[in-house]
Amino acid sequence: MRDLFSFLPEERVLVDREDLLLYSYDATPAKRYPLAVVRPKSKGEVVEIVKAASRHGLSLVARGAGTSLSGAPVPCEGCVVVDFTLMDRIIEVDEANAFVAVEPGVVYEELNRALAKRGLFFPPDPGSGSVCTLGGMVAMNSSGIRAVKYGTTRDYVASLEVVLASGEVLRLGGRYKKSASGYDLKSLFVGSEGTLGLFTEIGLHLVPKPGRRAAMTASFDSFEKAARAIASAVAARADVAVLEFMDSSVVKAVEGFSGMRLGSAEALVLAEVEGSGGEVEGEIRRLAEIFRGAGAEVELAFEEAEIAELWRARKAALPALARVAETLLLEDITVPVSALPQMMRRIGRLAEKHGVRIATFGHAGDGNLHPTFLISSEEELARARAAIEELFRECLTLGGTLSGEHGIGVEKRPYIELEHGAAVQVMREIKRALDPEGIFNPGKIF
Amino acid sequence: MRDLFSFLPEERVLVDREDLLLYSYDATPAKRYPLAVVRPKSKGEVVEIVKAASRHGLSLVARGAGTSLSGAPVPCEGCVVVDFTLMDRIIEVDEANAFVAVEPGVVYEELNRALAKRGLFFPPDPGSGSVCTLGGMVAMNSSGIRAVKYGTTRDYVASLEVVLASGEVLRLGGRYKKSASGYDLKSLFVGSEGTLGLFTEIGLHLVPKPGRRAAMTASFDSFEKAARAIASAVAARADVAVLEFMDSSVVKAVEGFSGMRLGSAEALVLAEVEGSGGEVEGEIRRLAEIFRGAGAEVELAFEEAEIAELWRARKAALPALARVAETLLLEDITVPVSALPQMMRRIGRLAEKHGVRIATFGHAGDGNLHPTFLISSEEELARARAAIEELFRECLTLGGTLSGEHGIGVEKRPYIELEHGAAVQVMREIKRALDPEGIFNPGKIF
Repeated sequence: MRDLFSFLPEERVLVDREDLLLYSYDATPAKRYPLAVVRPKSKGEVVEIVKAASRHGLSLVARGAGTSLSGAPVPCEGCVVVDFTLMDRIIEVDEANAFVAVEPGVVYEELNRALAKRGLFFPPDPGSGSVCTLGGMVAMNSSGIRAVKYGTTRDYVASLEVVLASGEVLRLGGRYKKSASGYDLKSLFVGSEGTLGLFTEIGLHLVPKPGRRAAMTASFDSFEKAARAIASAVAARADVAVLEFMDSSVVKAVEGFSGMRLGSAEALVLAEVEGSGGEVEGEIRRLAEIFRGAGAEVELAFEEAEIAELWRARKAALPALARVAETLLLEDITVPVSALPQMMRRIGRLAEKHGVRIATFGHAGDGNLHPTFLISSEEELARARAAIEELFRECLTLGGTLSGEHGIGVEKRPYIELEHGAAVQVMREIKRALDPEGIFNPGKIF
Repeated sequence: MRDLFSFLPEERVLVDREDLLLYSYDATPAKRYPLAVVRPKSKGEVVEIVKAASRHGLSLVARGAGTSLSGAPVPCEGCVVVDFTLMDRIIEVDEANAFVAVEPGVVYEELNRALAKRGLFFPPDPGSGSVCTLGGMVAMNSSGIRAVKYGTTRDYVASLEVVLASGEVLRLGGRYKKSASGYDLKSLFVGSEGTLGLFTEIGLHLVPKPGRRAAMTASFDSFEKAARAIASAVAARADVAVLEFMDSSVVKAVEGFSGMRLGSAEALVLAEVEGSGGEVEGEIRRLAEIFRGAGAEVELAFEEAEIAELWRARKAALPALARVAETLLLEDITVPVSALPQMMRRIGRLAEKHGVRIATFGHAGDGNLHPTFLISSEEELARARAAIEELFRECLTLGGTLSGEHGIGVEKRPYIELEHGAAVQVMREIKRALDPEGIFNPGKIF
């Protein structure tokens, strides 16, 4: 293996089993050792890696921080992992055009810390933001709690430099605000999960960092009331930056884990409004009225310290759940917001029918739910798998999509045709046109 | 011809020369008669048309209102035009999800009139909005004066139903707010200028119709000052819905045409701020300060009647220019906003160097300029063609793109490789994968 990549210094080609272990998994149960790991530091090295892999019939799996919840960066059989974490330079912050160019290994929160000094902000805000890389975010079209206001990573990608399977380097897009010139290849690469090419540079449009924010928690004595309140807030065009939901299982787990008092609510909603001035207070109060009218007990926060305290509950959700079961299967469906109440009822019915424990939280404002299956035995796992397949069918019946922000990877690959039908064949044809030998991340998505 | 399309009633297959004349051109000088025009009323008929064309080796050119400024819907040699104007139903307005489904022949302003009753709004606002169709807008990724705040058509396309060259029907996307599931085929079809498939249904995300607006005109005694003022406003993150520029040639033409008094300004800027409440007045006053500080005479308008009066000048720009020359060549370059002053200076130099008249207006807030060549003789046309090629090179040197909102069509096809380089080959490969016989709009884009 080292011979194939002799253009790299020895310490950047890993072949020892203990080194490879760290690259064998992501945040899903999937696991496989790669043949080797290469750690490029430049575009030139990435081109050489692709050419070497192509010459020797090896496949390549791109990897950032490995926080994927879909199995996308888990090594495929006999592959080489391309670890991008050493390509972590912020290349240029262009304040006049509200644009930044980065290498793919830059970490999300580090980028935002650097941008904050200039009053700028890249908003998608994934849960893994403190460690995940921009390359991974672009490959997966990641987002998080702020997508309800700001959209997903794809909405911010201004330009991409991509190494194709041929070794050729494409430069797509630019720092201009709009274009009607040629096919939108850039959007095609965003969310392609490493199957079409390797990113060596990413350009992002940025937004001004909002100056003011206010937050709200609303607790409900019934899950139905919460679901209807969320749908009303969305229908009333509430200008929320965040609108999160937690069901009673999550609330109880958080209370047990953090010692916070959440009034043992049957459902908890957390919201945030942000902007530049007085409209922030007006909007959070309007939102509070909607939620009170729907039967919630509401608490508002205007100071940063109070807001941070409200957020402790939401941030504790995943670690708290991880304590009440051996394994978590974190799902990621999205439905039209009007279908949220129905979807939530169906999740309840599925849990009963299959005898599984499901704790649900998620980005309710944009219809993105994370029903989380709590697994402590092989039997429970088997029942959960059956329930998950039914969950996907129900979500699609309601006009939803299999993934809001985690991608397809290997986890949802068996279901891709359920959602996309004949379009999967078109995806395969595009893959074949761009990567005829199939060297990039085979076995993912479809 | 009628035999091939015998599944359509006779009056919806046009073959007489006087009927075909109406389908032989768009808003560019290009012109060619098609073999026939077919006018489907349903998805089923569109599928039959594609199958018939494929069987008989005919190519198909989709057409909405024919307002294109790039030649995209101008018939290619020996083609059949598919006129979508009879497929003009608004299929469903889904208020709860802020979503609308339409057939491709629906007219932009008619859609917004229907949506206004529900407090909803589809913002891209092209200049031809009173007649252009949604199918055309999606095919070209159109936009207009509001793109600076709201983005382009692509940002709003939630779902597409597309008939492929095989006759197969794809359904892409949905009315959910976000997805990380599979390749983004939807964005690939948006802006593909009728070369990849025919749209039979379009789903759009909508936004709340803003309740309040305020407008500003700023007149300058020098073009340089105006250019710098615009760059300052953008750098100050002014939250403008509209930020338009007109140079002295446009100002003079408008004064002559409309009788308006614009103080014979050397440059005129028009801006609009919109929102839900008090922040609107604050923001327009902040903008006015920036422009006064840059040496402008500023006028503000808060009442609808006053705002409409300010807008008369901008709306008169194109008809006014059409009166001072026999032919207009309307260009559509976009540069990063920081490069606007430089781009404007270079346009002035090009006019001098080539001895051509160029009047420039455009959507300065997003860097999209329409340098308009005023042509009254063959010699002037030849000089303009030379200047335009140089204009494109200068725009690309400044990090720009060949088209902000009009597309490539036939007009800019010779220059597509200048902008996209090796990516054009990837576009061609995708075209070949989806439309191997090349039946859809051959000879456009590349």
